[in-house]
Amino acid sequence: MADISDNLAEELWLTAHALADAARGAILPHFRATGLDAENKEAGGFDPVTVADHAAETAMREVLAQRRPQDGILGEEQGIVEGTSGLTWVLDPIDGTRGFLSGTPTWGVLIALSDESGPRLGVIDQPYTGERFCGGLGRATMTGPLGERPLGTRAPRGLDEAILFTTFPEIGTEADRTAFARVRDTARLTRYGMDCYAYALVAAGQIDLVVEAGLYPYDVGAPIAVIEAAGGVVTNWEGRPAHEGGRIVAAANSAIHAEALALLNG
Amino acid sequence: MADISDNLAEELWLTAHALADAARGAILPHFRATGLDAENKEAGGFDPVTVADHAAETAMREVLAQRRPQDGILGEEQGIVEGTSGLTWVLDPIDGTRGFLSGTPTWGVLIALSDESGPRLGVIDQPYTGERFCGGLGRATMTGPLGERPLGTRAPRGLDEAILFTTFPEIGTEADRTAFARVRDTARLTRYGMDCYAYALVAAGQIDLVVEAGLYPYDVGAPIAVIEAAGGVVTNWEGRPAHEGGRIVAAANSAIHAEALALLNG
Repeated sequence: MADISDNLAEELWLTAHALADAARGAILPHFRATGLDAENKEAGGFDPVTVADHAAETAMREVLAQRRPQDGILGEEQGIVEGTSGLTWVLDPIDGTRGFLSGTPTWGVLIALSDESGPRLGVIDQPYTGERFCGGLGRATMTGPLGERPLGTRAPRGLDEAILFTTFPEIGTEADRTAFARVRDTARLTRYGMDCYAYALVAAGQIDLVVEAGLYPYDVGAPIAVIEAAGGVVTNWEGRPAHEGGRIVAAANSAIHAEALALLNG
Repeated sequence: MADISDNLAEELWLTAHALADAARGAILPHFRATGLDAENKEAGGFDPVTVADHAAETAMREVLAQRRPQDGILGEEQGIVEGTSGLTWVLDPIDGTRGFLSGTPTWGVLIALSDESGPRLGVIDQPYTGERFCGGLGRATMTGPLGERPLGTRAPRGLDEAILFTTFPEIGTEADRTAFARVRDTARLTRYGMDCYAYALVAAGQIDLVVEAGLYPYDVGAPIAVIEAAGGVVTNWEGRPAHEGGRIVAAANSAIHAEALALLNG
């Protein structure tokens, strides 16, 4: 794990906020604008990439070129830049493009800083509501309409008292859906459609679990850093590190994480 | 239909904003607070009523006692007050209590003013994001993080190019779900979990359709007034007036409304 001094941590956090600010400025003029141009990335699938997505990643890359040219970049839209510092910024300018196109404030800008051990710092930013969830390198805080608050996950409770989120009812493969159904059928309440906002709600102590499948590295870096800083646990469905993406369990604490894993693998 | 002069319309809108302001003040201290007390209204079901719900309805009833004692009140929590003016305020202090308990900003305060013909004025207010969607008696506007904007629904497009929302995948009865699936399978994109916020997105021109079942009169009055003022169409699944609740189709325009009704009844 890279050794990060207090001074460097401060510099990295200033950079992270500059990235989130740049993305906000690039994206907000396009949110809820009419006539939004959506491309389809995948033939047959619905995965629109908006003008805002491109503009935000470009703006963030300009910030990094100025402030941290020695760091690597892994961006959803514009690929990989190799660095020399051992640190890599992992950028998803708009996580939840379908939510963005629908006008819901549940998408977000995801910014993570990773070393070879995984994510060390993460930001989940919601430009429209003005919420920013930050975790890692000694910080776990959010700012938003109610001011600044510490992040902290929920205390343990049984899954039958827990709130579970996922983005789509149509999660993953048939086998994935069967496994997910065992968790859903035990949970007190299951909600859908929140994109990356669901991970922020785990870190903010509002919900207990997020279970998803089919994620990419740029989808998971920031949620992992923010939730772990807030006291939670994030792994893949096998209980191993999740920063490569795939099937994810994000949990408020190790007890409910274990209960969910047992059902997913039952 | 009651004859409402411009002066009376102005007074009613001032009252509507005073109601929404009172509800905001009563609710926000409880949103994302820890240790929220939730009662269960229904044995076996999960329909929590929070302290905030009661406080907001009480605060709104106080506003009406001062400003419009001649009007009737139909409130979700505290029942019916008969009036003498022929006008009735229909109040749902927190529509989307499950969203509220989960920390999502998709719940809202619903305020409608109805006469014997149905809703004449509606407000969908989201206290946390600071958004307020207003329609009826000559108005169709929203205010929020991006300032004040006119409301207006989307232009017609085929259902295969449309965005559909509903709150739960588990909508209504088995027959309702089968009918809903015909609409969902044709729509370009279906999203879940937005509570009353989905109706606001129809009025704001972001999405094309909301299809739901099992609604109450206090769930639908404000959405009907706001969407109709923005140029949309709201009926029940039989194409009749929807202000008594039940199974609802809220559409951006009459063309997509007709396409959805045909599939629901096919």
